[in-house]
Parts: sequence; structure tokens; C-alpha cells
Amino acid sequence: MSETVETIWQPRPQPFPVSGMPASVRIYEVGPRDGLQAEATLVPVEVKAEFCRRLVDAGVSTIELTSFVSPKWIPQLADAEQLMTELALPETVRQVVLAPNQRGLDRALAAGAREVAVFVSATETFAAKNLNSTVRGALDAAAPVVQGAVAAGLPVRGYISMCFGDPWEGPVAPSMVADVAEQLVALGVTSLSLGDTIGVATPGHVHAVLGEVLARGIGVDSVAMHFHDTYGQALTNVYASLQAGVIEFDSSAGGLGRCPYAKGATGNLATEDLLWMLHGLGVSTGVDLDALARTSSWMAARMGNESPSAVVTALAAGRA
Amino acid sequence: MSETVETIWQPRPQPFPVSGMPASVRIYEVGPRDGLQAEATLVPVEVKAEFCRRLVDAGVSTIELTSFVSPKWIPQLADAEQLMTELALPETVRQVVLAPNQRGLDRALAAGAREVAVFVSATETFAAKNLNSTVRGALDAAAPVVQGAVAAGLPVRGYISMCFGDPWEGPVAPSMVADVAEQLVALGVTSLSLGDTIGVATPGHVHAVLGEVLARGIGVDSVAMHFHDTYGQALTNVYASLQAGVIEFDSSAGGLGRCPYAKGATGNLATEDLLWMLHGLGVSTGVDLDALARTSSWMAARMGNESPSAVVTALAAGRA
Repeated sequence: MSETVETIWQPRPQPFPVSGMPASVRIYEVGPRDGLQAEATLVPVEVKAEFCRRLVDAGVSTIELTSFVSPKWIPQLADAEQLMTELALPETVRQVVLAPNQRGLDRALAAGAREVAVFVSATETFAAKNLNSTVRGALDAAAPVVQGAVAAGLPVRGYISMCFGDPWEGPVAPSMVADVAEQLVALGVTSLSLGDTIGVATPGHVHAVLGEVLARGIGVDSVAMHFHDTYGQALTNVYASLQAGVIEFDSSAGGLGRCPYAKGATGNLATEDLLWMLHGLGVSTGVDLDALARTSSWMAARMGNESPSAVVTALAAGRA
Repeated sequence: MSETVETIWQPRPQPFPVSGMPASVRIYEVGPRDGLQAEATLVPVEVKAEFCRRLVDAGVSTIELTSFVSPKWIPQLADAEQLMTELALPETVRQVVLAPNQRGLDRALAAGAREVAVFVSATETFAAKNLNSTVRGALDAAAPVVQGAVAAGLPVRGYISMCFGDPWEGPVAPSMVADVAEQLVALGVTSLSLGDTIGVATPGHVHAVLGEVLARGIGVDSVAMHFHDTYGQALTNVYASLQAGVIEFDSSAGGLGRCPYAKGATGNLATEDLLWMLHGLGVSTGVDLDALARTSSWMAARMGNESPSAVVTALAAGRA
């Protein structure tokens, strides 16, 4: 039953609603920042801008554009100011930029940022290795950034990484995630993104982490889930999150940032694979699956690689 | 949040049960038949036998070994008799062989088959193109095979392909699937496998098809689900099926039969990716994930390709 068939029908998701699902969800597109940050090939700013415009043309209404991080750390995003100047996206598009520190916030505000994201870790080892700090230290460092953004009238998204497992510490207690979530909210963040950075989560674990976080009085509609597909579990974890009432999910167009071939390939859920499920559930996203898949194929060609997205691959084969 | 991290912890599924899940699930391993049938590289019978032995050593207790199909149709499986002779798997292993017609059944019985599978289609076009028949004609052709196997005291599994979409007809009505399922049961099959041959299903569609089939008085524990990962939906559809009470799932070790690179790659859910979720849910399978992943890496090396399984890829990277 595995034969490849010459297709006449071009399959698309057929809506079969499941009770208890939200009528619509927000796709938080991380391709331009989180996706490109993980790509070795340096992408010209004009291509990044065109990519963002095509995403918006496809109906994407929330995009994380770039990070005002030091170019020393992430050369790929050294053009953050240029991209912001180059881009003139409609006001209706929610546009977020990462500001890892005070310097990043100053640059973001000067560049006309409309929403800022900060980044902390649920685990000490990742805080030490990736943020050169501690969990407490990362929260203290985030505090003035959050407060500065709030003072400037901007919403702030707080990312928490390693919410399900840590590559050095192993399993992560849901209470550790909830502790950090609670402190970020106390600092003034307006939304959270809980990241399964190493992709180990399964549905019961998702319910456990969400349960702890919501038990701290944090509203489910201010919590986004950010799953990685390292172990093939991302989409199922989205489904479990939907059943728990989550209405915002991080994904990257075409699975950008996830190498399709590398051993131990890690990275983001492909937006198209997510859309296939959501549209199949009759959950509206406002995104045109075909237009997005064409955009991802276009971007993959610019990157000189192939999209790891199953849907992008299958739809491209159907067009061929 | 997509950086590849140097891992010290070797991640494994952490059990977080979800209420309403079965305590255990049967993995119906289709790699040796359905997987190899789709592989271009001809595999020596000794390698196939060793592959099956390693599957059993890893704890796999249900395997579809081969198909007694005409070698003209599937050269890869021309060695069905030799494989059966070569193999001496323990009585405790459920061993199934496909018998596409009377001639196939005669060969299967002569080779000492213990369980037989037959194959029909839910759609007319696939019946015509793949079985050179009609839905009715395929059922009529299956009748003597089912009855002959039952008369020989063997259980019979009835595969139904194209249960969610047909590459020529498009969407398939759940009632068409239920009609065929009902007729197969009337013929005497002891279990069913409902196939999403082109991988288009989403969870609500799974509930719709299962609902129609179970409404015909067919017991859920006699229904297995066979999902393909063409659009990345297979594992989520398994999760939805689990929530509907299904306790048997078809998958292939390492995703054998699914080309990791080909445009429009189709094929089976990888058993390892399925095990990651099941073990993460605290659902027991009797299969050793690490031993199975090593077996799939070994087999991929024999095939001269790489496993498309995310879990096999990630665990191999962890061992390296």
C-alpha cells in the first residue's frame, strides 16, 4: 500500500470538524527569524523582505521578522535594521522582533518595532550554555527589556525554552516551566511561548505542562505552543494543545530552519503541515495553503535546498 | 530556538499518561512486506530473514512477512516461499502473509502460513487501476480466498485501501468504506485494516470513518488503522484513533518503503515515531525502541539509503 500513484485529483484537506476545537487559531510564523537563524546560507535582505511580503500575501497575519541580536552571535540577522526599513507591511499584520537585551530593545525601538519578544530558559544548563546566565539571571536581564517595551506601549512575548526536556539535564519538571512563566507574567509580558526546543514532548506531557502553567492563573489564550519535530511529534502535540484550548501555535513556512537531510535534524514544525491538519479540522487560520506552499518552495530554491515539509513536498510534486 | 545542540542526555519518551488511552496497543509491523514492496533495491532473502529476526528480537510480535503475489507484479517478493522456509520465528509471533488470489492462497498454505491477508479497495477507480477489477469484483475475488483460509483454520485480515481519499476520484464517503468493511466481515475476515493510502486524512475524518464502520456493528478491537505520512498527518491520526478506542496500528520499521528524499514521497508511518508517542503516553507495546531503531538503521544500510524516520535519525545521531 505504499506505491506512489500518478495523481489526477490534487488532494487538499477535507473539513471534518472535531467537537471542542476552536473555530480559528493564530499561526505565529517564525520562519524569517527562528527559521533563517538556523540556516547556514546567508540570505540577502531583499530576499528576506520578499519572503515576508509573500507570507503576508498568503494570508499570514503574525510574523516574527528578525532579532536585534549582536551580529557577532547571529550573522544571518545582522541586517535587522535594513529589513525593518525595507519592509512596509500593513498595520494589520502583527509584527514581532526579538530583543535579547537592552541594546537590542534600543535598536528595536529605534527601528520602529511594534511588538517585542524576549527569551528565557526553564533550565539552568541551557540558561548557562545558551544565554551565558542562570534562570534567575536571564529573568533579571529580561526585566528592563520587558519594562522598557511596555513603557513604550508595546506588547511583549516571553519565550521559554526547554519546557519539556533539556539536552544536558534531561527531563524538565512542569513546575519549573510554570515558575518561569509566572515570573515572566509578573514582569509584564503580554503573551508566552512554551518551547519544546529538543522536540521530545508527547501529548500527556503537553497536558501536564499546560495544566501547571494555567493553574498559576495564566489565561490559555495568552499561551502559545512552540513544538519542534525532532522526534516527529510536533503536530500531534499541537492537536493535544488544541484539545486543551490553546489558540496560537509557532511554526515556520516550509519548515525553514529544519534541515531535511542532516542527522539529528531538529527544528520547527512546518506551517503547511500544521495548516493541513487545522483546515482538515475545519479550524480557520486565514492562510492560503497553496500560496504559502508556493512561497516556501520559492524560498527553498533561494536557500538552495529542499523544504522538509511533507505538505510542501507533496504539493510541489502535484504541481509538477 | 532551532539550534542543533550537542546532546549529553540521550532523550527517550517520558511517560505522561492521558486518560482514556488503552493500556497497550498492538504494532502490526508491515516493513518486510508493505515496506520492501515499495523499495526499488532488490533485497536478498537472507537479509529479509535477518531483518525479521531482528524485529522479533526487538519485541515486535506481529509481522506481515511477505505476499504470495505473482513475481511478475512484485519482483521484490518473488522469494516468498524461500523466506518462509528460511524463517523459523517463534509460535508466539503473529505472522501474516498477503494472498491476493486463489493461487496466492494455495502457495501460502503450502508454505505453512498461519494468517492470511486479503486486499480490496473502497473506490472503483483504485479497484480498476490497482486490482484490475471493480469494488464488487475485488470482493468476489477475495471471497474464495477468505473462505479457503477460514476453512484451513486461519485468521484472515482484510485490507481496505483508499478509505480517506482516492488519487483519481478525490474524497471518499465514509459510508463507502463501511459498505466494503461490512461485506468483508460477511465474507469471514477476522480483522480489518483501514488504509489512508494517499495520506490525506485528518483527525475528524478518522472519527467519521470509524464512526460509520463501528455503526455497522463491527467491533473496534477488530479494526486496525493504516496511515501514510504523505502530508505529515499519520501520527496525529493514530492519536485520534486511540481516542476512538483503536488498539492496532500498521507501521513500518524505520518508515521502510517511504523514500526520505523523493518528491511526493509517500508511505508508511515509521514504527519508531509511533513508539515514541505511545511510550510517551505510557501505552505499552512490548517493543524495545532502541533495539528497533538499531534494526532500522541496519536495514537502511542494507538498502543503501537513510531512514525517513525522525526518531531513527535522531537516535542514530545520539549514538554517533
